[in-house]
Amino acid sequence: MDTITLIGYFAGTLTTISFLPQVIRSWKTKSTHDISFAMLALFGLGMLLWATYGFWLNSPPIILANVITFALILVLLAMKIRYK
Amino acid sequence: MDTITLIGYFAGTLTTISFLPQVIRSWKTKSTHDISFAMLALFGLGMLLWATYGFWLNSPPIILANVITFALILVLLAMKIRYK
Repeated sequence: MDTITLIGYFAGTLTTISFLPQVIRSWKTKSTHDISFAMLALFGLGMLLWATYGFWLNSPPIILANVITFALILVLLAMKIRYK
Repeated sequence: MDTITLIGYFAGTLTTISFLPQVIRSWKTKSTHDISFAMLALFGLGMLLWATYGFWLNSPPIILANVITFALILVLLAMKIRYK
């Protein structure tokens, strides 16, 4: 695999896992007051559309990355609604 | 432009602008306690790598989307440090 493809995979892994520490923090503190609902909603919708894009192009890495991130955003949205 | 390319552009626009309402909310409330520093750091590093990927492939849409998002993440990181 060439360097730039590796950089692309590394970038995708980072942006996908980045929401995990946010989920853990919100779960621990039970507080999501400072997180913007609009940010989560827009980002989640964007993830759904990226996943659609990935399905259409039959690209497993695009599908996988966006489905995982979408799931994390859904958890954050649920906590945002639950914890206020 | 075909439908799937339009979906891709729309997805990219959504994920890029999604951090704008977060910046506005944090600016207004002067509070970033519930936002995970690790999330911002990992996501910001991911954006830098995606921008590198875009420069390497000479892809203006990838560069533009990731540079704008990186700038918004930098603002959030600064507010996270400033407001605690």
